[in-house]
Amino acid sequence: MRCLVLGASGFIGGHLITSLADSGHQVVAYARHFDSNHSISTNTNIEYVTGDFCNEQRWNELLTGVQVCYHLISTTVPKSSNDDPIADVTGNIIGTLHFLEAAKKKNVRIVFASSGGTVYGRINTDSIDEHHPTDPLCSYGITKLAIEKYLLLYRELHGMRSVVLRIANPYGEGQQPDAIQGAVAVFMGRVLRGHTIDIWGDGSVVRDYIYVQDVVQAMIAASEYGGRLNVFNVGSGVGVSLLELLGMIEQVTAKKADIIFHPSRSFDVPRNVLNITAAQKELEWTPQIPMIEGLKKTALWMQEKINDSL
Amino acid sequence: MRCLVLGASGFIGGHLITSLADSGHQVVAYARHFDSNHSISTNTNIEYVTGDFCNEQRWNELLTGVQVCYHLISTTVPKSSNDDPIADVTGNIIGTLHFLEAAKKKNVRIVFASSGGTVYGRINTDSIDEHHPTDPLCSYGITKLAIEKYLLLYRELHGMRSVVLRIANPYGEGQQPDAIQGAVAVFMGRVLRGHTIDIWGDGSVVRDYIYVQDVVQAMIAASEYGGRLNVFNVGSGVGVSLLELLGMIEQVTAKKADIIFHPSRSFDVPRNVLNITAAQKELEWTPQIPMIEGLKKTALWMQEKINDSL
Repeated sequence: MRCLVLGASGFIGGHLITSLADSGHQVVAYARHFDSNHSISTNTNIEYVTGDFCNEQRWNELLTGVQVCYHLISTTVPKSSNDDPIADVTGNIIGTLHFLEAAKKKNVRIVFASSGGTVYGRINTDSIDEHHPTDPLCSYGITKLAIEKYLLLYRELHGMRSVVLRIANPYGEGQQPDAIQGAVAVFMGRVLRGHTIDIWGDGSVVRDYIYVQDVVQAMIAASEYGGRLNVFNVGSGVGVSLLELLGMIEQVTAKKADIIFHPSRSFDVPRNVLNITAAQKELEWTPQIPMIEGLKKTALWMQEKINDSL
Repeated sequence: MRCLVLGASGFIGGHLITSLADSGHQVVAYARHFDSNHSISTNTNIEYVTGDFCNEQRWNELLTGVQVCYHLISTTVPKSSNDDPIADVTGNIIGTLHFLEAAKKKNVRIVFASSGGTVYGRINTDSIDEHHPTDPLCSYGITKLAIEKYLLLYRELHGMRSVVLRIANPYGEGQQPDAIQGAVAVFMGRVLRGHTIDIWGDGSVVRDYIYVQDVVQAMIAASEYGGRLNVFNVGSGVGVSLLELLGMIEQVTAKKADIIFHPSRSFDVPRNVLNITAAQKELEWTPQIPMIEGLKKTALWMQEKINDSL
């Protein structure tokens, strides 16, 4: 199978292209750039292509012979997306529409990485299913949602097959401790280096963390799915508070976390845990890696990375 | 009160500015152009301003002293919006975001005309309330929905007060019989002129029609609303089939409709009738004009218009 991965230099993208190539698929790995931080796989099944998603002119060429396209590109992150919603819409919705206009003429399936953490907004339930209201509290969530709607529309109008995955908070090897996203990597990096950790609120905020290889398996399952549903939550289905997360990080690193508490921020919803029943049933997928095990693997990788940089 | 009406040359906009001005409000009537078809009100409370919504540079100036802005602009119509979704997003979402970025610094309330006929998509109930899933079958509906979400977001982030009205199929005096939208005006115009009427399907398609003055009253009620809800259906709450509509048109015009039946179109949902309980309760508004009475008024106006053009 020939696959196109948009956003191949990102955290999930990096794992996905390796898994696909190791399974014998031909992979076109597309990203703005592949930097030195990223461990470029030497698997010869992977062809690396750099380009500007918003101004890409080669979609016809890039999509030739492609059976599945995984769309993981976002030109913004949740926190800063509200600073410039116009750039968010231009980069993400319009960028994606240019891609879809080319893809609709090809027989390509799309798997889209949406956001379980932002599309729902304020949560009114302990376990969010896909029918929960969607009133995002950041522009990032609105543009993800609009792209979801366009994928449904292109299915109606052009018979384009697509699956939307609303992904929880992924973590694992390769997630950068100095990035602006990803509580697990940031916290673990600081604990390993003996730095203090800033927490806004009392640490009771509950989130759904999922190991990156479990996300990759969900994406591959979605690409093979032929059923009638379109939108699936992809998470662990388990709620973990920030303090519980720090406790587990202390356990796997055998180091103490030095926490500084700050006043809570209005945009942090108290709880966001996904109901993953639909994905389990329809995609025949379920998360395989318990959190403590995933954190151990992550800590091993991160300790090595920190040692290398000394 | 000083009001800004965006889309003041349209069918609803024309009625709205007249009602507001007649109630003693100062009205800035904004549109791309005010053409000769449109009966320009001579009320001195109305100031006419022409401009290009997508490239407007004068929002700060136009919003000065404005307490309420009614946003009725759409640069597309449902049917053709799927032909160019990129233009739809650029014209409507980005156009609106430029406006909101200026408006967020002012203490202005927004009343937004969304679309009860397109945001819900395929309908799974006899009477659609505001919690029904929103999976539009046209780009027009997606951009309306995205704007709704941005209004909610700007309320969260900037305290901007706004009310979204998901309006059913409005009809009444001033709706052009030669336009590309508006079954009532198109059908009535053809019946009055003795032309044949094309119906796709068997005429059993059910819609919710609302007299334009009832829509105007809902918009004014929304501008005064201080409660906690944001999104309201605005319709009659009554389902009328195309054949029933034609029967009523025959009654008020005392002419026979000459119907040609065509195969049904995939994008016509069989039934779309709005549940208006929330608007009735929260906005203390309810439609006043029974359909047969609204159609009589419309027929009188349209007959006169046709006579004038002879």
